[in-house]
Amino acid sequence: MSADPFRPAKRVAGQRQDVWSIVNEAALASPVQPIVNMGQGFFGYNPPPFVTDAAKAALDRVDCNQYAPTKGRPRLKKAIVEAYGPFFSTETPLDPDKNVTITTGANEGMLSAFMAFIEPGDEVVIFEPFFDQYISNIEMAGGVIKYCSMLPPAHGSERTSSAADWKIDWEGLEATLEKAGSKVRMIVLNSPHNPVGKVLSKSELERVGELAIKHNLIILSDEVYDRLYYVPFTRIAALSPQLWERTLTVGSGGKVFYATGWRVGWLIGPEHLIKHVSAAHTRICYSSVSPLQEAVAIGFEEADKHNFWDESKKEMESKLHRFCSVFDELKLPYSIPEGGYFVLANLAKVKLPKDYKFPDHVANRPRDFKLCWFLIMELGIAAIPPTEFYTDENAHIVEDYLRFAVCKEDDVLEQAKERLRGLLQYMA
Amino acid sequence: MSADPFRPAKRVAGQRQDVWSIVNEAALASPVQPIVNMGQGFFGYNPPPFVTDAAKAALDRVDCNQYAPTKGRPRLKKAIVEAYGPFFSTETPLDPDKNVTITTGANEGMLSAFMAFIEPGDEVVIFEPFFDQYISNIEMAGGVIKYCSMLPPAHGSERTSSAADWKIDWEGLEATLEKAGSKVRMIVLNSPHNPVGKVLSKSELERVGELAIKHNLIILSDEVYDRLYYVPFTRIAALSPQLWERTLTVGSGGKVFYATGWRVGWLIGPEHLIKHVSAAHTRICYSSVSPLQEAVAIGFEEADKHNFWDESKKEMESKLHRFCSVFDELKLPYSIPEGGYFVLANLAKVKLPKDYKFPDHVANRPRDFKLCWFLIMELGIAAIPPTEFYTDENAHIVEDYLRFAVCKEDDVLEQAKERLRGLLQYMA
Repeated sequence: MSADPFRPAKRVAGQRQDVWSIVNEAALASPVQPIVNMGQGFFGYNPPPFVTDAAKAALDRVDCNQYAPTKGRPRLKKAIVEAYGPFFSTETPLDPDKNVTITTGANEGMLSAFMAFIEPGDEVVIFEPFFDQYISNIEMAGGVIKYCSMLPPAHGSERTSSAADWKIDWEGLEATLEKAGSKVRMIVLNSPHNPVGKVLSKSELERVGELAIKHNLIILSDEVYDRLYYVPFTRIAALSPQLWERTLTVGSGGKVFYATGWRVGWLIGPEHLIKHVSAAHTRICYSSVSPLQEAVAIGFEEADKHNFWDESKKEMESKLHRFCSVFDELKLPYSIPEGGYFVLANLAKVKLPKDYKFPDHVANRPRDFKLCWFLIMELGIAAIPPTEFYTDENAHIVEDYLRFAVCKEDDVLEQAKERLRGLLQYMA
Repeated sequence: MSADPFRPAKRVAGQRQDVWSIVNEAALASPVQPIVNMGQGFFGYNPPPFVTDAAKAALDRVDCNQYAPTKGRPRLKKAIVEAYGPFFSTETPLDPDKNVTITTGANEGMLSAFMAFIEPGDEVVIFEPFFDQYISNIEMAGGVIKYCSMLPPAHGSERTSSAADWKIDWEGLEATLEKAGSKVRMIVLNSPHNPVGKVLSKSELERVGELAIKHNLIILSDEVYDRLYYVPFTRIAALSPQLWERTLTVGSGGKVFYATGWRVGWLIGPEHLIKHVSAAHTRICYSSVSPLQEAVAIGFEEADKHNFWDESKKEMESKLHRFCSVFDELKLPYSIPEGGYFVLANLAKVKLPKDYKFPDHVANRPRDFKLCWFLIMELGIAAIPPTEFYTDENAHIVEDYLRFAVCKEDDVLEQAKERLRGLLQYMA
């Protein structure tokens, strides 16, 4: 008997339904319309006009409409070197042609990094909770994932505290790295962290750095929320020349300029790493979207003139305060974000009706999926169940939490709060 | 001794310098400036205003600046179904949600197809000459490439004739497919063909189709030049329901609307194939550039109103005539393109000076690389050496040819002709 000629390769076969499509389907099916969507982390408003105007101008230029160089448009590479160079303690100034490569969003940038260094069977350490795309990106390269837990505070269901109280399981991490026969080649960091909102402290980064040097790891530092931090923010590649030598720092034009649909990202690092990432990127996407690269370049050039970085941070922090006040009001604990635009709230106090009918694909998932479904159907507000960002084994750790994205217009945040007040009737 | 911690994965390591960077470097180093660039196939002019205007309008819409759905914006999927549906003989109309998936350019679309179906060790047949990105895309998935030759006419160095005279090596193809232990799962077609300019005839496609059915192959039909044909154009997926069932047809917004830097492509096919391509695409790029998807959608909606398809074809055919007249004048034979915008000219009659100094990385490549270098340095005109699109073993077949892209402004074509007249002094 011959095999099905249309069978998929293992790398794409047999995945369960992802959280985004579950949430979107529920939102469409909810009797409460329109849904207030605090789920996916896209912005509810436009990029600043100085960036969209630059994009429009680029659309009138022949060279901006045609293939960008595979490593990125020269103007964008230069703008990134000028914007980011001062953050890193390199002996010589960054070189736009050697230390930067432009990718099709940070996502494809990270895939390019895995494709550049991971052979089938090589291991990659990621922290749990993780951004879900890491998993498929690593698996595409044939990598094997090793998880290191970031644990919520023990009092998480009782009282609000800083996202700093989520703690790395150092013993677990060391055990993974020390294990006989370990094939770990890379460790992935994410700071400010999605979904926890934690900014890794200098001392945490130093400790990760020591381990990376000891075990000769490449560090892939996902810093896409790098312009939104409300406590001091340290970049691991800035800590020492030794760490710079082994670190790829990931950034995103979509995240910094409110345009997640633009697909302009970049990696910054030493030439001996960047050149292989560029080679992988060329084989994946050939080149990235040209006119929007030019717009992001101009965005960086003009950001200071518009005081954009300060305003952007101030605005997002104000949105966080505005939104989180409803949890204070409801006495629902949450992690106060140190960075980014996600809030993890703990809904342990919410009692789901015992006889509530959940569809099968929700009923067989942890409690946070049920909370998510219930909030969409009964209150008309969408949030993301964070067990999606955990292995099955550890999902119970966050099954009382939901993730809310506050990068929305203020009136949407007010509507969200009003809907969340509906939870009161389900609390003891 | 421990291994280099920064060693690249095999899939990106140890490739020789690619043709594009050799040509670009030579162009920068040439004493004749500016170079007339007839090399890479990007357009020397802008997309039509109805398309760029649509892009600018999209940049003012919040939803168009944020993540597109992973399978593509609904308006674009609908526009593609409406534009392409009539070409295919399916029993039921195409469904935008099931039969189309949007990708980050046709290139990433083809990678997604390989990633969706090719396990390490599976074989893929491609025709030689091939578009060079196919190689790395297939190798990224761990695929093994089997080549089938498309042979130039025996009289190619003596007289001009149609690109139709390039012939498929049917015996070689059948031998590959019949070989004991063959693991061929896919066959890649390209029509109109880059760089040959051949449009596969209905009878050629029928013969490929019979073989694909007999050997249970998936057909990946790269039809990115599908709006530029000067002889009848047949789509293999339109020949029969059996062929539709096993074919993925690749298209490109960048190619049809003169915007190679936009990175908007698509695959059309039966649901049982498209769903796996979508899954792979999501794992590679997550989603594709959102505002330019909207612009391409509007481009399709409005193309007929502007008589764009006819005008576009007429304009490119006129550019081909305008440019090729210089080869008639010089009595240099070429293949008359049946589609697309590339011309393969045969420069066997050009005598390169015996003592000419070529740099090492050109000297150790076939004669077409030397012709390419010589034209850039002495005449100030860039073209592409087509042995780059051949295996080393078969490179000799086309070592007298160069590929010229005519998708340039008419005055550039005239400059190119003037420079090519300089060849006369090197012809016996």
